[in-house]
Amino acid sequence: MTKNLPTLSPLLVQDAVRAALIEDLGRAGDVTTEATIPAGAIARASISAREHGVIAGLPLARDAFLAMDVSVAFEARLSDGDAVVAGDCVARINGPARAMLSSERVALNFLGHLSGVASLTAQYVKRVAHTKAKICDTRKTTPGLRVLEKYAVRCGGGANHRFGLDDAVLIKDNHIAVAGGVAAALRAAKAHVGHLTKIEIEVDTIAQLREVLTEGADAVLLDNMSASQLREAVALISGCFPCEASGGVTLETVAEIAETGVDVISVGALTHSARTLDLGLDIEIF
Amino acid sequence: MTKNLPTLSPLLVQDAVRAALIEDLGRAGDVTTEATIPAGAIARASISAREHGVIAGLPLARDAFLAMDVSVAFEARLSDGDAVVAGDCVARINGPARAMLSSERVALNFLGHLSGVASLTAQYVKRVAHTKAKICDTRKTTPGLRVLEKYAVRCGGGANHRFGLDDAVLIKDNHIAVAGGVAAALRAAKAHVGHLTKIEIEVDTIAQLREVLTEGADAVLLDNMSASQLREAVALISGCFPCEASGGVTLETVAEIAETGVDVISVGALTHSARTLDLGLDIEIF
Amino acid sequence: MTKNLPTLSPLLVQDAVRAALIEDLGRAGDVTTEATIPAGAIARASISAREHGVIAGLPLARDAFLAMDVSVAFEARLSDGDAVVAGDCVARINGPARAMLSSERVALNFLGHLSGVASLTAQYVKRVAHTKAKICDTRKTTPGLRVLEKYAVRCGGGANHRFGLDDAVLIKDNHIAVAGGVAAALRAAKAHVGHLTKIEIEVDTIAQLREVLTEGADAVLLDNMSASQLREAVALISGCFPCEASGGVTLETVAEIAETGVDVISVGALTHSARTLDLGLDIEIF
Amino acid sequence: MTKNLPTLSPLLVQDAVRAALIEDLGRAGDVTTEATIPAGAIARASISAREHGVIAGLPLARDAFLAMDVSVAFEARLSDGDAVVAGDCVARINGPARAMLSSERVALNFLGHLSGVASLTAQYVKRVAHTKAKICDTRKTTPGLRVLEKYAVRCGGGANHRFGLDDAVLIKDNHIAVAGGVAAALRAAKAHVGHLTKIEIEVDTIAQLREVLTEGADAVLLDNMSASQLREAVALISGCFPCEASGGVTLETVAEIAETGVDVISVGALTHSARTLDLGLDIEIF
Amino acid sequence: MTKNLPTLSPLLVQDAVRAALIEDLGRAGDVTTEATIPAGAIARASISAREHGVIAGLPLARDAFLAMDVSVAFEARLSDGDAVVAGDCVARINGPARAMLSSERVALNFLGHLSGVASLTAQYVKRVAHTKAKICDTRKTTPGLRVLEKYAVRCGGGANHRFGLDDAVLIKDNHIAVAGGVAAALRAAKAHVGHLTKIEIEVDTIAQLREVLTEGADAVLLDNMSASQLREAVALISGCFPCEASGGVTLETVAEIAETGVDVISVGALTHSARTLDLGLDIEIF
Amino acid sequence: MTKNLPTLSPLLVQDAVRAALIEDLGRAGDVTTEATIPAGAIARASISAREHGVIAGLPLARDAFLAMDVSVAFEARLSDGDAVVAGDCVARINGPARAMLSSERVALNFLGHLSGVASLTAQYVKRVAHTKAKICDTRKTTPGLRVLEKYAVRCGGGANHRFGLDDAVLIKDNHIAVAGGVAAALRAAKAHVGHLTKIEIEVDTIAQLREVLTEGADAVLLDNMSASQLREAVALISGCFPCEASGGVTLETVAEIAETGVDVISVGALTHSARTLDLGLDIEIF
Repeated sequence: MTKNLPTLSPLLVQDAVRAALIEDLGRAGDVTTEATIPAGAIARASISAREHGVIAGLPLARDAFLAMDVSVAFEARLSDGDAVVAGDCVARINGPARAMLSSERVALNFLGHLSGVASLTAQYVKRVAHTKAKICDTRKTTPGLRVLEKYAVRCGGGANHRFGLDDAVLIKDNHIAVAGGVAAALRAAKAHVGHLTKIEIEVDTIAQLREVLTEGADAVLLDNMSASQLREAVALISGCFPCEASGGVTLETVAEIAETGVDVISVGALTHSARTLDLGLDIEIF
Repeated sequence: MTKNLPTLSPLLVQDAVRAALIEDLGRAGDVTTEATIPAGAIARASISAREHGVIAGLPLARDAFLAMDVSVAFEARLSDGDAVVAGDCVARINGPARAMLSSERVALNFLGHLSGVASLTAQYVKRVAHTKAKICDTRKTTPGLRVLEKYAVRCGGGANHRFGLDDAVLIKDNHIAVAGGVAAALRAAKAHVGHLTKIEIEVDTIAQLREVLTEGADAVLLDNMSASQLREAVALISGCFPCEASGGVTLETVAEIAETGVDVISVGALTHSARTLDLGLDIEIF
Repeated sequence: MTKNLPTLSPLLVQDAVRAALIEDLGRAGDVTTEATIPAGAIARASISAREHGVIAGLPLARDAFLAMDVSVAFEARLSDGDAVVAGDCVARINGPARAMLSSERVALNFLGHLSGVASLTAQYVKRVAHTKAKICDTRKTTPGLRVLEKYAVRCGGGANHRFGLDDAVLIKDNHIAVAGGVAAALRAAKAHVGHLTKIEIEVDTIAQLREVLTEGADAVLLDNMSASQLREAVALISGCFPCEASGGVTLETVAEIAETGVDVISVGALTHSARTLDLGLDIEIF
Repeated sequence: MTKNLPTLSPLLVQDAVRAALIEDLGRAGDVTTEATIPAGAIARASISAREHGVIAGLPLARDAFLAMDVSVAFEARLSDGDAVVAGDCVARINGPARAMLSSERVALNFLGHLSGVASLTAQYVKRVAHTKAKICDTRKTTPGLRVLEKYAVRCGGGANHRFGLDDAVLIKDNHIAVAGGVAAALRAAKAHVGHLTKIEIEVDTIAQLREVLTEGADAVLLDNMSASQLREAVALISGCFPCEASGGVTLETVAEIAETGVDVISVGALTHSARTLDLGLDIEIF
Repeated sequence: MTKNLPTLSPLLVQDAVRAALIEDLGRAGDVTTEATIPAGAIARASISAREHGVIAGLPLARDAFLAMDVSVAFEARLSDGDAVVAGDCVARINGPARAMLSSERVALNFLGHLSGVASLTAQYVKRVAHTKAKICDTRKTTPGLRVLEKYAVRCGGGANHRFGLDDAVLIKDNHIAVAGGVAAALRAAKAHVGHLTKIEIEVDTIAQLREVLTEGADAVLLDNMSASQLREAVALISGCFPCEASGGVTLETVAEIAETGVDVISVGALTHSARTLDLGLDIEIF
Repeated sequence: MTKNLPTLSPLLVQDAVRAALIEDLGRAGDVTTEATIPAGAIARASISAREHGVIAGLPLARDAFLAMDVSVAFEARLSDGDAVVAGDCVARINGPARAMLSSERVALNFLGHLSGVASLTAQYVKRVAHTKAKICDTRKTTPGLRVLEKYAVRCGGGANHRFGLDDAVLIKDNHIAVAGGVAAALRAAKAHVGHLTKIEIEVDTIAQLREVLTEGADAVLLDNMSASQLREAVALISGCFPCEASGGVTLETVAEIAETGVDVISVGALTHSARTLDLGLDIEIF
């Protein structure tokens, strides 16, 4: 893979893993393992894919095992962003059996969820590979997991939209309505923000788009437009700024949307409706 | 509704909402709203369903608005666990426009995600309504959201499995292998836990099941068995303890599995692969 | 020792120790040690018992020293659950004198408190050793220390009751009163909980017990019954489910209660009224 | 009562109560109450003493009920520091039955533990009432509860020693040994600390005490001295600075120690070995 | 004032105030006030300016009093961003004397520090009022206070630069060196970030600036250039993108820099070297 | 250096650094470095002084680099409390270039701020070096940084006043007014606090001071007195207890105040108005 993935901060990884382990261990800990596995038992295991997709979340899986016992050896056989088919070995693990069994579910929950996001992203990306369009996420993420899910989108070949309400302006219909129209809203935004904050505005009609072109913006979001409207919009914009299509994007419709020439297609489903990637941990020997 | 739903602890709701708001507001807050919406503006809005399903998460949605401004009035028109069809009004909101717009996404992210879990659960529940089988969740939940997702499963008519590694024993194949067989594992577990902890054991074969029947347990998990194997197992168990089927359960196969007479069917997909329920917030007037 | 003790999660140990050190160090830290002990001084010390009892809490004591300075060597000479008499060496410590002196009180506070719980438990356990009864804790624990205190009960040879309100049903007199009687309460509970949650019910009279036997439960709590009532109850139950005695249990009365044939005797005093075990840290050389 | 008690900071009370409730509610919450008590049920209850002692912790008990449901009315009938005898009503509570039952144990655990500390303190205080000696706590507190336990000591009529390692210097034998003697240690401490930090030093012998008198200190701790040694020490000190006796203080010995004329007697048992005060919550009507 | 100030999130204000109060109250709380002020005493006070400047931080001051006692009435007489001269009344406070005295220092520490930042910013802004240049902050903020200090810069009439490493790209000399030059660095950045992230690049020479103009960027930072270099740069850029001057900016030099025509002047001193604004709280009556 | 500096607790350092890194990295992390610096790049850098002053904060700077990547080698060339002149090398750093660049600002923000406090303190200390007066801080610290700033004051040769409201009594004018005068306030304080808490009282007049001398106190604060008043006060006190001058102390006036014979001069400016010390990190080679 040659993807230039973002680095997950070690502070973030530690906090997320720690919270998930505490959530799973509860107060009394892994009573099953304590009852049935001797304290000194050593095991060797592997995590493997049970279907095809794209891997994301290996630093979290690794950290889940190490947080329970620093003597676990976790050897990733692939990197985040790598494609897998059923049967591929993702990682090999060696160490105390108790720690391994107690961490397994947390490791797989992170890896399955994030790989699910990456894999769905990769499907969208593939459908638009013949165009210049980038597939992009939204703020429709699972509460508490935004940074991790946006990382997974990158692993799947997608791009990131805003990380939150604060790192760019995105003027939507309600803002336009209250501000008194497209031009007024854009002027208010420009007056409000510093020189390193981009301003994007959502438009529903070609008429609104013309106002944006007159007033100027850093990007425009073409919301719920038909393919022919999108094409008209792209022609009008003519490269002045990036244009983003959103609304009703599915794996079936995304190629047609991309072929209109838009720069970015944002897809809420990447993060709010991805199913898990099926991965399993198999103990090989004790 | 006659569902007897669990109460979400106010402490949990506050913490989850607070974390999600901080995640979305980032450092600089909602710069778009600050730039375009006057500080004193008042708005009225409604949250409505855009497809059919089951609602879950209203306490979190309410809290998201109130955490930003205590003067927001949030009136739920339905209760968690209620079914909706497209167009149904879920809640009405009245108050400061800035707070409303800044909280909207967090409120909808919780409501959409949890309603998605409830709705998928309800579909499974409906498929087995002609049997005595209960649909049940697993520990394959989204990291950080286990309690909320298990609550949503209840809203959808499902039942809850263990909340974590500590509140019941579930002896799986690896535990059996190390412990030296079914009987040895069960004996070890009984010796280890107190009188208020149930012990369930996973079996793959009828032979293993016979060992369980001899040794005694509180429940048995029949893993990846065919319908005919399940029927044989149910006959053998003959009501001695609840039996749970798991593995490869889908909306297509669940009815056949339920018809074998098992008591519980556990479905990881309820929490790891539900897509969001499509809900929208529409500002009605400013 | 052949006790199969639960594992204290390293995450829990770290958090508890860290909070206790911060509580003791305050803002300005150990001003006495800074003033009087040179930064490079090395010391060797031992922790020893000054009375007989049972040790619990060594992982916390170790972590207290290491949290202040990772170069401290902490060598436990005994294990949690081991009995001691006055003079026994519990652990030897070697390393920077400043860290050792600054951590000493936190280490001893944990070790003394938890060993106190373990030691009191061991006294109760010894009194009933000629019976089958298990000595069990309650939810009457010191706020913030429940998991640690329940671990100490195990170190003393006792068993654990519920860890909280969520991991089993325990129907008490008030619940019965509102639910409309023993049978109604049991039916409500069975309808409410999943297949891995046990249901225990408290009864004050033989009449109530008969209702429980008719309706079925996972365990029964015989509250404040005399020895003769307990004997009658045990005879009636006849092994259908475990029975627990509680109320007014003291070191003087516990043997008589155990001799009635009850399975479990729960004792609030184990955690709410244990006095500390007297342990001391002696610096041997600087 | 005319005791001038310290104020418990509302921030501290909220944090302590919140943590204790989360500890008890776990993930699934109070499943028994949810199953058996209707959501709208209202109850009236009272907390009463079942033995004599001194009350401490009412703000925590109140907050425990309110944290679960702000509509609970909690009416304290006594104040912290008040004496009770068996049967005395401590507080009356009125409100939603579910919240009341779910908070009961946390409220009683705080109230019982802190009242236990206050009651034991009061016993010591009473034994020395005919002398000028103050009964004082130590740093031998339960981890996580130091501020609350020291508050309870005040409720029982005792005084507070250091709250931690940072708010005063207390030079002990090990510090003296390394620093090179009493005089050297005192000089090092005086050079190190600011003008608002007191310096106390522990001495085991009259010879050491003479050195302290020569060098000067703010207080002296007479450790493990016999009554006759204490008397000699008091005579020597002759009011130059407060003197504190410690070591082997029990309810049996404390009067004799006090009668030697020492100013302060510090007793670790106040906080590390107090048993709970027996208090009960009785539901009166639903 | 017509400044459109950002809203401080109530979550942020609560957390910051709570942490500061805990820092000041320590374990034992305000012992002086407890000893000398009766519990029921009521006081009236006012906060007033003792020198001229610009106010920032009123929401924090208000919250500091309310966090200690919700019955305190805090009436702001001015708004954040308002100018004051010595003697101006900033706020009036009425309520329990104990809470007022215990919160006073925290309230004033926030108000003094943030008003200090606002006041220094206002001085810079005034010096460049005859130009189009905006005065802008940097990431050289006090650890833990970045959002609050950047808010104070806005109160003083300044603009905000990046809030952190993540909300815009700023390519500095070291990045350029490793990336292989200006053009290569810009290309790498464009390939890496999404469509809502701006890219600014720092240049030291006119030659580098020419490369930027060829390659394209969203903004350029002219580092440590003389006034004549800045003028040359501004002429070259000719409005293609905003240009920012930084390095060695003082109250003495800022006007000359602004007169070169740069759009933005960033000043680390605004946040790392502002002195407090002198404000006092005077109790008027008890 | 022979200063006996306090030890910064590793727990405090870790928490402060972690919070500051999270504040700077935000959600998406250091996007610039990710885009332009290869993952494997190694760099060597040094931190050096760009003006003269006193260094404070090296443990925080070190920890900032290590928290991002444990393989960074941080070699301090000086110690906290050491004086520097422009050009002096403070530390050398070697390791992964990405971690180094991402941590740089946090490390410098701590080091610059704390060294600024230390340097300003050192200036005050130098001005009074011919007297016995100690320069002392106040509670006028930056919210969240009190312990670190008070540590920096020590690095600069100053002494520490109270760390908070709880570790000593300081009776001010408002307390005196309500308590009913100097004598009444002192008596109330003595009755309230334990034997290890010092009591200081603020006086504005010689008449008040006479009352203090009659009643007794541990220290007196002479507030806003002229040099001649201070001299009169010092003569009256005649060494009975330490006396502290405060109010209107500047670098210009401090020597004259010190020459009056006061023991301590407290200066709010040390912590609320110090400007940063100019330090830079230069990458030497990649």
